[in-house]
Amino acid sequence: MTRHDQFFSRAAEQMKESAIRRMGSVMAGSRDIVSFAPGYPAPETFPWTDFRDIAADLLGGKDPGVLQYGPTRGYRPLLDAIGGIMAHRGIACATEELLVTTGSQQGLDLVARVLLNPGDVILVELPSYTGALTAFRNVQARIVGVPQEGDGVDLAALDATYERLHREGQRIKLLYVVPNFQNPTGLLIGLPKRQRLLEWAGRRDVLLVEDDPYRELYFEDSATETDVRPIKADDRDGRVIYLSSFSKTLSPGFRVAWVAAPAPIAAKLEIAKQSEDLLTGSLDQRVVYEACRRGVLDRQLPLLRRHYQHKRTVMEQALTRALGDTVSWPPPKGGFFLWLTLPPAIDADAMIPRAIEHGVIYVAGEAFFVDRQEGNTMRLSFSAPTPERIEEGVSRLGAALRAEMSASVQMKAPRASRS
Amino acid sequence: MTRHDQFFSRAAEQMKESAIRRMGSVMAGSRDIVSFAPGYPAPETFPWTDFRDIAADLLGGKDPGVLQYGPTRGYRPLLDAIGGIMAHRGIACATEELLVTTGSQQGLDLVARVLLNPGDVILVELPSYTGALTAFRNVQARIVGVPQEGDGVDLAALDATYERLHREGQRIKLLYVVPNFQNPTGLLIGLPKRQRLLEWAGRRDVLLVEDDPYRELYFEDSATETDVRPIKADDRDGRVIYLSSFSKTLSPGFRVAWVAAPAPIAAKLEIAKQSEDLLTGSLDQRVVYEACRRGVLDRQLPLLRRHYQHKRTVMEQALTRALGDTVSWPPPKGGFFLWLTLPPAIDADAMIPRAIEHGVIYVAGEAFFVDRQEGNTMRLSFSAPTPERIEEGVSRLGAALRAEMSASVQMKAPRASRS
Repeated sequence: MTRHDQFFSRAAEQMKESAIRRMGSVMAGSRDIVSFAPGYPAPETFPWTDFRDIAADLLGGKDPGVLQYGPTRGYRPLLDAIGGIMAHRGIACATEELLVTTGSQQGLDLVARVLLNPGDVILVELPSYTGALTAFRNVQARIVGVPQEGDGVDLAALDATYERLHREGQRIKLLYVVPNFQNPTGLLIGLPKRQRLLEWAGRRDVLLVEDDPYRELYFEDSATETDVRPIKADDRDGRVIYLSSFSKTLSPGFRVAWVAAPAPIAAKLEIAKQSEDLLTGSLDQRVVYEACRRGVLDRQLPLLRRHYQHKRTVMEQALTRALGDTVSWPPPKGGFFLWLTLPPAIDADAMIPRAIEHGVIYVAGEAFFVDRQEGNTMRLSFSAPTPERIEEGVSRLGAALRAEMSASVQMKAPRASRS
Repeated sequence: MTRHDQFFSRAAEQMKESAIRRMGSVMAGSRDIVSFAPGYPAPETFPWTDFRDIAADLLGGKDPGVLQYGPTRGYRPLLDAIGGIMAHRGIACATEELLVTTGSQQGLDLVARVLLNPGDVILVELPSYTGALTAFRNVQARIVGVPQEGDGVDLAALDATYERLHREGQRIKLLYVVPNFQNPTGLLIGLPKRQRLLEWAGRRDVLLVEDDPYRELYFEDSATETDVRPIKADDRDGRVIYLSSFSKTLSPGFRVAWVAAPAPIAAKLEIAKQSEDLLTGSLDQRVVYEACRRGVLDRQLPLLRRHYQHKRTVMEQALTRALGDTVSWPPPKGGFFLWLTLPPAIDADAMIPRAIEHGVIYVAGEAFFVDRQEGNTMRLSFSAPTPERIEEGVSRLGAALRAEMSASVQMKAPRASRS
């Protein structure tokens, strides 16, 4: 037989399976498990009937382009609709600055390929989105984390990190941030800090990668549209590459998202996309466009805000009931995620088998770290399960955690008596 | 303003726009042009009504998975259906050897990323598919061409190229071939040569990348199913990575294709795909699966063979009428393409403005070469235009070529008189 490992590229040798995707495999093999692991939107919120009507109209066969190859940049009417969405967010965008991508994941991957050489530094918030970390790792970039405060990335630590790396002779090219309801922490970068981040990037000649899939999902009991103003909206200098998506507002099954970048970068991203998949699905792009044109998206947004806000409330109340003072979390003001800190003695990754035993699953925090780890953290997604399942799952999580804590005490007790 | 070019990766600096995609932009700006440029399938052959019925059933909302995230490997029933298609082609495939990709273009890109380091050599047929060349170039591989004979790649030249590069200390990892109705030449690798290619790859410890999007489209007046037997069907040694697609048989708008590779390679391709787009479109995968399950695909294939065979015949007859002895081509026995050789004095790329003037367009041959060029060649796609438009386009091409030839004689005449 052929020895295959000798053929792998250096990039492939370093590739690691996503922890979140791995959880998907665990799920597939199990029976009654409440999953707080993947950040799936709630399928009961999808506008099924609208999609069915739109698909029927599109597949009437009158426009051959619906099922044909098309331009790599994207379906032109959809690009125009995205331009309108961007304008509503305060960002003026020319068409040559926009590119439709096959999910925001592709946008991240293209940004990595076009801007990062092996060894180039990209700074990320700690913790940060695993899918982005994977994309940066796959081009063999050096990923360096910067801690976060309550209002987002710690600016003093950011600049100190920059200075240290710069002194070491490293090339620091990018800073990756998720300013709105960050994956995994749910944190929101404060408005003054957004302004200062942009100034910092200009001063240090670093590009900002602003990943913004959750911005429409602010919870009206604790945030407003003003709070989610993109950094890109104040970018007069071509400093920000902005990514957003229809996956959380219409459906992830269509794989339609976009990047807005300075025109020379957008042109390179387009060429890189030619090689990755030629174009994003034609039918998918047109369904999404029609959902914009017919007002489906606009009707969805207030419903989604209420839907996920309610689930967030249910999860917070259940956590308080089940785990009271033993855990803590920053209150999510939007998005899909709640970031739980457990007692210091507990390792969330080691606890997974016990959690599965109790019929609940999550993503252990360490998946979201790079050069530093917090073993006693986990990401809980409240987006997909029903309120009843959230309550059930949190109650199971409470039982699992109490069992883990008493096992941890028993483990330590004999050791203590021996010393 | 930010200076963006200083941020580009080495890969991005080398990225070039696809010549075929560029032709698409030319088309978009023009009125009455017959396009022989892109290898688009004929939309009038798409089973629109079946797709509309299938989409309506899927979007009934009974299965949330239709619009949800799903496994990176692909929708499991679709993977099983692909296993059945592979078995019909003589290839026994376990599920862990299969991966659904977002078009075969993604398969090529993933293969490049997982197997090629910058500087590694990949051998290709000359001429070869530009989309593949782009994928290999984007990982900064060294692409080296090997000439073709009437029955495919020249084995003596192949081994001589291997030996020369090996002596130079190069690492030769892959050989990329399109054995069935190659893009751009339409050539078919003969059965004895397929066997010898596989032996050669084993002897030289090179992996074969077999790209097979056109195999179902053999023309029954000149080829049979026996002629298109995949090399992979005789691969006992895990030597072949096989790619195929539904783009040419159902529709390219769905972006659903697949790779079959030895399990350790398939596992790495899956991880690379996690970073590129997480998953291929959920609705797209299910529509394609249903088209397999309901027999739509099986019903399409004989219709498509006849459809494209007829267009091929129309194009060959029109070429004979319009250009007679001034051009030549290998008769296509399947697929979408005819490879035209012009008189040696004519440069097909330089002739493009004149062709557009005459209302016809093609892809100049040089797009398909790497280290050697044949300026007097062009690729004509007969797949998309109607028979009437094919006749009209060839007649325009004849006029453009005659004009170019007489201009070329006039250019030379004064120069000759001066010498």
